[in-house]
This record gives sequence, C-alpha cells and structure tokens, in this order.
Amino acid sequence: MLTYSMDQRGNLSLYEYLYQCIRGDILSGALAAGERLPSKRSLAEHLHLSVITVEGAYQQLEAEGYVYTLPRRGFFVSPVERTAPVPATPPSAPEPEERSWRLDLKRNQVDRSRFPVSTWARLARRVLSEDGEALLRPVPHQGLPALRRAIADDLRDFRGMAVDPAQILVGAGAEYLYLLLAQLLDRDAVIAVEDPGYPKIRQVYGSLGVPCRPVPLDSQGMDLAALAASGAAVAHLSPAHHYPTGLVTPIGRRQALLRWAETSGGYIIEDDYDSELRFTGRPIPTLQSIDRGGRVLYMNTFSQTISPSMRLGFVVLPPALLAEYRRRLDFYACTVPALEQHVLALFLSEGHYERHLSRMRKEYRLRRDAVLEAFRSSSFASRITLSEQGAGLHFLLRLKTSRSDEDLRRRGEALGVRLGFLSEYAALPSPTYAHTLVVNYGGLEPAALPEAMALLGAVFAE
Amino acid sequence: MLTYSMDQRGNLSLYEYLYQCIRGDILSGALAAGERLPSKRSLAEHLHLSVITVEGAYQQLEAEGYVYTLPRRGFFVSPVERTAPVPATPPSAPEPEERSWRLDLKRNQVDRSRFPVSTWARLARRVLSEDGEALLRPVPHQGLPALRRAIADDLRDFRGMAVDPAQILVGAGAEYLYLLLAQLLDRDAVIAVEDPGYPKIRQVYGSLGVPCRPVPLDSQGMDLAALAASGAAVAHLSPAHHYPTGLVTPIGRRQALLRWAETSGGYIIEDDYDSELRFTGRPIPTLQSIDRGGRVLYMNTFSQTISPSMRLGFVVLPPALLAEYRRRLDFYACTVPALEQHVLALFLSEGHYERHLSRMRKEYRLRRDAVLEAFRSSSFASRITLSEQGAGLHFLLRLKTSRSDEDLRRRGEALGVRLGFLSEYAALPSPTYAHTLVVNYGGLEPAALPEAMALLGAVFAE
Repeated sequence: MLTYSMDQRGNLSLYEYLYQCIRGDILSGALAAGERLPSKRSLAEHLHLSVITVEGAYQQLEAEGYVYTLPRRGFFVSPVERTAPVPATPPSAPEPEERSWRLDLKRNQVDRSRFPVSTWARLARRVLSEDGEALLRPVPHQGLPALRRAIADDLRDFRGMAVDPAQILVGAGAEYLYLLLAQLLDRDAVIAVEDPGYPKIRQVYGSLGVPCRPVPLDSQGMDLAALAASGAAVAHLSPAHHYPTGLVTPIGRRQALLRWAETSGGYIIEDDYDSELRFTGRPIPTLQSIDRGGRVLYMNTFSQTISPSMRLGFVVLPPALLAEYRRRLDFYACTVPALEQHVLALFLSEGHYERHLSRMRKEYRLRRDAVLEAFRSSSFASRITLSEQGAGLHFLLRLKTSRSDEDLRRRGEALGVRLGFLSEYAALPSPTYAHTLVVNYGGLEPAALPEAMALLGAVFAE
Repeated sequence: MLTYSMDQRGNLSLYEYLYQCIRGDILSGALAAGERLPSKRSLAEHLHLSVITVEGAYQQLEAEGYVYTLPRRGFFVSPVERTAPVPATPPSAPEPEERSWRLDLKRNQVDRSRFPVSTWARLARRVLSEDGEALLRPVPHQGLPALRRAIADDLRDFRGMAVDPAQILVGAGAEYLYLLLAQLLDRDAVIAVEDPGYPKIRQVYGSLGVPCRPVPLDSQGMDLAALAASGAAVAHLSPAHHYPTGLVTPIGRRQALLRWAETSGGYIIEDDYDSELRFTGRPIPTLQSIDRGGRVLYMNTFSQTISPSMRLGFVVLPPALLAEYRRRLDFYACTVPALEQHVLALFLSEGHYERHLSRMRKEYRLRRDAVLEAFRSSSFASRITLSEQGAGLHFLLRLKTSRSDEDLRRRGEALGVRLGFLSEYAALPSPTYAHTLVVNYGGLEPAALPEAMALLGAVFAE
C-alpha cells in the first residue's frame, strides 16, 4: 500500500501533497505503468485521510493523465517517461542595462514635464468613476467610435483633412501600424523607404520579410527617378518633416509623387510623425489632403506630442484599402486598451490636445532658439553649419573636422556624450553624410546648455 | 498687383487667408511658374495689411514649396501642377453593424459584471495620483519590470513555473504576440497548428505568409505521427484545455511532444489561454514546467480572466530564443501603455488577481452546473451528448439530427440564435465533426436559461 508521511506536506493541502507524492512515484518509476492504485476508501483508511481527499488527488492525477480509470475496476498508472523533476532555478538572463549619459543627443526625447498629466489623470478618473465598465466593454476592431470621431474632427480642424471616422484604424503605436500595413499591402510588393531615414521602418518591414528598397533623397525629398527605378509599389514617406534630415517636401514634388502612385497603381504611406511641431506658420498640408486618386495611407501617432509610452497611433485608409482591410484583416482586435481610447477621445474633443500643442510649440520654439544660440556662440561655432526648418525636435549639425564619425563617437562615449550621426540612418553609404550630427534637443534643458557646449567642445577639439 | 478682398476671410487669420488666396491662384494657374510676387512691403500697402502679415503668408507658401526665393530679388512662383481643390466630402464607408442576438452561443464571452472594476479603478487612481508621470516615463521594451516580476511570482505561486522576469515579454494581446513570435521563429519554418483549433492563430500566421499546417488531434491532443509528417519546426498547442474541443493533453503525450521538439530541434508554443478556469482541482501543470531542453515558448493573456478589451498578454521565452529576440527584435517598443502595466502589476502583487480568479471559478462552476442541468432536462435532452472537462467557458454538444450544420445555422439565425459548429474550427474537413456545437456559455445568465432552452428546442426540432 502507498505510504506517505502526510505531516511533511508544509503549506500544501492534504490532497495536493498526496497528488504530488503519487505523481513523484509515477515519474520515478516506483509506480509502474499499468499498476493498479489502491481503492480510494482503502488508501484513505491507510493514510488516515478522508475519502474526499484521496478522491481529489486521484482526480487531479487523472486530469493530468498520470492515471486512467477502467469502469468498476479503479485507477491505473498511465505509461509515462521516467524523469527527475526540473530544477526550479530559472535561467539567469540579466537584462542589458541602459547607460546613463551626461549628454544624450541621439535619443529622440520629449520633455515629459510639458504634458498636462493632471488633466489626463482627471479625465481618466472621470471615465473610471462615471463608467468603469467602459474598461471591459468590447471595442470595435478599428477603435472606439468616439475616439475616431475626435481624431477625424482634429484632422479637419487643424490639418484641413476630410476624413470619415470609418476610414480610421487605431493601433498600439507606429511599429504596430507598420506591421498591419505590411499585411494589408501586397506582401511581395517592394516598399521604397527614404534613405537616410527612420531605422525602425526598415527594421519592421525587414523583419516581416517584405522587400524594402532604400531610395535616396534629393533636396526636395524622395528622388523620383530612383523611386521609379526601384520597382517599388509602395513608398513610405515623411513629406512634412523628414527624419533625420528635417527636409520638407515642396508642393511640386508632392504632386509628382502622387502622379507616380496614380500612374503606377502604387500607394504612398504618409508617415506624419511630427507635423504638429512646426514653430512658424501653419502645419504643412498633408499629401492625403491633395490625394484625389485614393493612393495615400495617412498615419500619425501621439508619441511625439503626448508620450511614446502611451502607444497610440492611427491610420487613415483610402476607400479601396479600407474594403480590403475589412475583408482580410478585420479579425485583429484593436490593440489599444479601452481606457486610453476613452481618455484620449475626451482629451481631443474637449480641446486639451490643441491647447497642449500650442503650449508645446511655444516652449519648444524658445528651447530651440536657446539651443541654436548656444551652438552659435560656442567655442566651435566657426566650425559648424546648422540646418533646421523651424520644426521638430532635431536638426542637423555639420562639423568641419579631420576626425572620422567613428572617432568622434568614441571620444564622445569616453566623456559620457552620446552622439547620433546622419550616416547611421542611411542604408546606402555616401560621403556627403560624413561629419554630420543629428542633434535631438527635445530633452536639452536651457540650464544644461553651458555644460553641454563645454562637453561638445571637448569632443570636437582637433 | 494681387488683389484679394480681405473681409471675406471668415474665421481665418489675415495671413492664413492671404496664403490661401495666393495658393489658389498658383494652383489655378492665375499665377504662372517663374512669376515674381510683389515685394512684401508693396503688397502690404496695396492690401492695407501689415508687412508681418504678408511675410507670414509668403513664409508659409515658401515652406510648402509654392514659391521660392532668390537672394535680393524676392519671391517667385514654383512650377506646380494646376489642380482644382479636392472636394471636402470624405468617402462614405459605413461600418458593418453587428447583429444583436436573442441567444449567442458562438461568441466567447466573459461576464463583465464579475470583474472588480472598482478595485481596478482604485489602483488606477492610486497610480495617477501618486506618480502621474509614470504614464509618460519610457517603459523597457520587454515590459515594466514590476509587472514582469509580478507575473513571474504568480506563475511560480499558482502554476509551479520557475521563470526569470527577464524571460518575460509583455505585449498587447495574443494576436500581437503571435505576430512577434512569427518574426522571432524562422520565417520559413512550418508551424503546425491544432485542427480543429482557434481560427485567429491560423489567420495571423497566414496573413504573415508563414507556412502553417493544420495537424489533426486524436483523443490525447496533437497527433504525433501527423506532426512528424507535417515537416513542422514549430507546434502551436493548447495542451491545458484545447479550444474548441476542451481536450486536456495527458502527461504521456506532453512528454512525447517535448521529445519531438528536442530531437527535431523544434519549438512548442504553449498557448495557455484559459488554464486559470479549471473548476475542480488544481490547474493542469504547464509543458513549460517540465521542459528541460528550452524548447517551450509559454504564452498567456488576461483576456479570459480580466477582459479582452484590456489587451494584455505575455510570453516566456526559453534562453536561446530570448537571446535571439534581444539580438533581432528588441527594437520593438512595448505595445502596452504604461498605466495598464502599473495597474496590473499592483493588481497581481496585492493578490486581487488570484482572489478574482477564485471567485470566478466558484461562480462559473455554478453557472456551468446550471447550464449543464438545463441542457440535461431540456426537451431535446435525449438527443444530445455533452462533453466537457470541468474547465473553460465552453463545451461541446453533439446532437442527433437529420439536418445539416448549415441547415441548423440558418434555422438558428431565423430565430435570433447564433450557433457555432465544431466544423467551422477545422481546416481539414471530417465527418466526425458534424452535428457538434461549440457552446460558449460565459455570457449565459442562469435566469436566461429557460428561454435559451426553448429557443434551442425550436432550432433543434426535427
């Protein structure tokens, strides 16, 4: 008869301890396949347990397949491999630690202190207290209707775009939307990406095995002859403000790009990632707003304007692709939690978003002016050329130097300075990219400028 | 000289109206390419505007590329295509409406009234008031450390799994995690999926172009000979409780599946989607917990236990794939907003989650008993066989009938009853699937049972 010392069970319940003992004996081979277990009643008597306890253990063993029953004959041991228990120490996989920098010009940072967290929190509390169940109610796959309405209204009022909320698809950030668009467009179709350009675009498409061709830029944006020669069916562009060059594509080139799409039957993904951050005049109108042929997929996120950790973006699909999306991809549930969608809908529709943008533009303009002034009055001012378009949180700095980019990077690292170089954003090398830094100044407080210039002076010293 | 009637500008600012007038003249051809615009000063005098207003309009036209400047000579019209403005009526794309049903047995529903929304809301308020900036702070790409710690603790305490939080990857729901895993595993590797099975698994892999083979089940789970013959390098399984058959894979088959992975160098994705909802005994131990060879990717979500609209799931990667993930895919930012991660971490670590699960199990056991009893005492009781495993929110019902599944579906629809059939979940047809309904009873209130049985009686009538 099976004999276990039940007082060694520690915190386990009686049935669970008994189950573990018998399972151990089956896995060690002490109980052989085909062997019959004692009846519940006799084992209960033997171990001074209740029949219910033994029954619980037997049922669990049966549910997991360690034993099987034969009608009116009882429980029998199943054939299983003999194994020792798996050691309970998990594999050690220390996470790579992020280095902290004295000065980080590479990382595209938004100054978090600018965001009206208290307003957002107040709206979140309102949603939670007025309609907490909203958290749990299913959201349509394209996104909460109130949020899509608010986005369409914002696009109409501030971007001059005529968008039906039914064309909008809400998703968890730009990278997720790239994943979705790659599935929506023909998977074998070549996608042209700007070179240099935002690396994650190439990384996402590359990771999906989508053929992706870097197409060089001229002074107006993507080069049309190179685009035509690339064999691309889709062009992924940031015409309002290219990253990292800051280039704004003029109206003539925009029209020509649309003609390319119309005549070739191609599509343009208009990635409008930071168009809200223009410091002078109005935002540059979108390609989508002058598209008559339904060739433009417009996308944007709230990562630059609210926070990347919010993970909220959207796509506006042209009619033909909307129908295709509904036919093939509508099985994907919306990736953004219901709460964030409700709160953002209120944040937009009550005007908080545009007020926040207007404050941001004002404050970043001041910051940009201070940063540019600091560079222009720095010890290395005579050796640099700045090119910036009054927009976005980055600009290019060209340095006269005899050192290589790699040399500058290493010198920076030794001094705790992280530099980003234009050459890193290019797939196809070109000598014209050398000695050009991408300066992301979004996280650069005016008070930190003197130290920053001193550090850069040391890095740039010949 | 350009002449516009500035008092017709409506709500627009002076500079914006002037910009629109000139842009219109350029697009209509009234201003030809190469033509020189009047100087700012003279146009300002002519239109009784300030020079700053004209300058604003000219700058915006220049930024968008409608005009260009020549040093000391002024502003000139750029060559652009003549176009009429795009009509401002968005394309109409009405969204497909969901039908409402008198009885819906097809949709997998969780009873929302069971979730402690007020506790969740309280924790959310706490996060927002104690540390609102947490909303905005960047989250590591694998997910918030506190959440991964809490998940690892829960897996240890309630699933007997030894997991290092560094192995965990947090993502926006099961479908997003499928997308990520398909990229992590070799893209050309064949993935075996259970047939019948959860359709979204096939849909996601299919949509990415990953070769995906349906492999039939026998009474113990995925058929090993068919798996070996499929040429698959990866098997996607739900051994704890298969959807929709409810099958629990016994220990002997689990061991054999692990051996298959070890000897073939393959991997197993263990999709543990509803293991928490076992109504008797302990949860079935995971494949991951008996995997010594590092062949199992364990995944689970909080969709069944909290709500699908929460969009929160996670994967536990074995060491080799964790290294591969960090090497190739760590560029993906975490898709879950920071707030949800903070709140779920508290919900888990303070024990609310396990208390909620324990209440859920108790209540769903009662509901299941009531539902089974209603079927067994129904007017059609003698014609049905129920098969269920004391787990999950669905079971199979086999009906003796002369009608086809399609016929039953249509009769149901006519009466407002939505039925799901086992045959719909299969990629490979088999006569053994016929006349078998998948009954999702999660949303079936006990009070609604008499009406439900009457409706089904009418649908099933010969």
